Amino acid sequence: RGKTPLGRPGLLLGIGDDAAAFEPWQRPVVVTTDAVVEGVHWRHDLIGADGVGHRLLAANLSDLAAMGAQPLYGFLNLGLRPETEVAWVDDFLDGLLGLAGCFGLTLAGGDVVRSAANFASLTAVGRAGPRLLRRSDAKAGQVVVVSGPLGDAGAYVLMSERGLAIDSEWGVTFRRAFHRPWPAIDLGRALADLESPAAMGAVMDLSDGLAIDLPRLCLASGLRAIVEADKLPVSTALWNLAEALDLPVWELAVRGGEDFGLLFTCPEETAAGLMRSTAAEIAGGLTVIGRVTEDQRVLIRAEGESLALPRPQFVHFGAADPR
Amino acid sequence: RGKTPLGRPGLLLGIGDDAAAFEPWQRPVVVTTDAVVEGVHWRHDLIGADGVGHRLLAANLSDLAAMGAQPLYGFLNLGLRPETEVAWVDDFLDGLLGLAGCFGLTLAGGDVVRSAANFASLTAVGRAGPRLLRRSDAKAGQVVVVSGPLGDAGAYVLMSERGLAIDSEWGVTFRRAFHRPWPAIDLGRALADLESPAAMGAVMDLSDGLAIDLPRLCLASGLRAIVEADKLPVSTALWNLAEALDLPVWELAVRGGEDFGLLFTCPEETAAGLMRSTAAEIAGGLTVIGRVTEDQRVLIRAEGESLALPRPQFVHFGAADPR
Repeated sequence: RGKTPLGRPGLLLGIGDDAAAFEPWQRPVVVTTDAVVEGVHWRHDLIGADGVGHRLLAANLSDLAAMGAQPLYGFLNLGLRPETEVAWVDDFLDGLLGLAGCFGLTLAGGDVVRSAANFASLTAVGRAGPRLLRRSDAKAGQVVVVSGPLGDAGAYVLMSERGLAIDSEWGVTFRRAFHRPWPAIDLGRALADLESPAAMGAVMDLSDGLAIDLPRLCLASGLRAIVEADKLPVSTALWNLAEALDLPVWELAVRGGEDFGLLFTCPEETAAGLMRSTAAEIAGGLTVIGRVTEDQRVLIRAEGESLALPRPQFVHFGAADPR
Repeated sequence: RGKTPLGRPGLLLGIGDDAAAFEPWQRPVVVTTDAVVEGVHWRHDLIGADGVGHRLLAANLSDLAAMGAQPLYGFLNLGLRPETEVAWVDDFLDGLLGLAGCFGLTLAGGDVVRSAANFASLTAVGRAGPRLLRRSDAKAGQVVVVSGPLGDAGAYVLMSERGLAIDSEWGVTFRRAFHRPWPAIDLGRALADLESPAAMGAVMDLSDGLAIDLPRLCLASGLRAIVEADKLPVSTALWNLAEALDLPVWELAVRGGEDFGLLFTCPEETAAGLMRSTAAEIAGGLTVIGRVTEDQRVLIRAEGESLALPRPQFVHFGAADPR
């Protein structure tokens, strides 16, 4: 127990003692934490309790994915209004524990407290892979890659806010993206497993949309980037929405947050190799969207012009509290 | 780095990337989490922001102390009403980081979110000592020991609730106990360092008062206990309060919560040895208050009778949400 670096470390003490304890391991310990509040990060008319639980854990796991870590243990603090129904809490836990089960994460501790507003605060602990993936490791000339289609989760919020019918065929795509985001754990671990450090660049997760997250990655790396609007991976549903709203589809793609895919940079040949991997397939596919530069600004080439990446004009849940 | 089991493991990545990462170590990883909510766990008329920050971390550290762990990293989620003043947040962090500095705990991550009620959720990560201290390891015939005086923090809340003047000489003792509890980290580590496993029994921290916590320890160990009312360690201040309220002082001692000392069982000779240690002195002294039995109930011998340990009759902050 606890001797082989790749075995799953066992829980020595779980809920019921003063604290949880688990076996140590021989790679860095990775920890992330997130909190969501009723009325700020979720609205009852847009999402059920199971979706809130799923999305909170997905945000945590997405952070672990961006470090290349394997999820192991979670710690949950729940603040509940006295009139909150038990069924709501059950549904919340169903959503959270369902996703936890998919990745082998064990809920090992937590607390329930009374509160004037419902909130949930989750801390996840994971084990790093052979290498830690950082935001600051981009190198000039590397390609910029994203996983999955962009903008679908944001499109769900946009449609809801504008009162557009989300029971259309494409509404289903957005609803799924918003309610059941799939964190790119397998992809993150595949990136951390690459044999040569030179094979990888910077990595982060797409939590606030490309227009916010790509400049963050560039800032951390001390570099810039240029992306091609017509290379951004978008769903047919997003094309349809863009047409209905008379907006360029790339604007919806870069502004929508909470897709929870990965954004990373790497040499062109690494990207080519990764695209054929199962991890890439599970993550919804990989797309090279641009290149790291030593330019002055982070740019997008669209409609024949090079533009600054636009800041989001509509507020999605969570954008009020950018991380 | 990270090679010697007793060196402090380094932070590899702190605030600013997707997650924090730190060097692994060779002993169990201990994690605890607590949340406090404005109006439920603290009232502005009873405590300042610095006290709230100090107490939240003290509760976390007290849990680590009860496991015999060394505190290493903390992760804080803050929920804030939009009208919360920056000075309040500064004071809160001063209180929390001041205590963190005393024990070498580094704040390595967290989030600030908007909320309808102010709340703080803290997760602390520590490294176990040579042995994990559990609630379930009591053995019949061992003595029951507590650290520090009992009931002073609870007395502060009681006086506030009854509108009694807390600017009296004894009020100062209670105020200090309530505002600046000192977690028994050194004592916990000393207990975990004892050479023979047979030298120790069960350990937990006194967060809800002896009347609640001792039955919990007994339940976890499948045993019972009897304590002597006239052996309970109490301050002169508590004697004075008991006289003013015409209550037996032992009732105030067993009912007051949030003293954050340790409650443990061990062979009589271990207790005798520990009492002369520096760790015991830092923890406010050790007192043998009774003995573990195979009896039917958890009892207190007071005024010539053996009584069931009374449940608290006044609610202190936090008792509304027993852990």
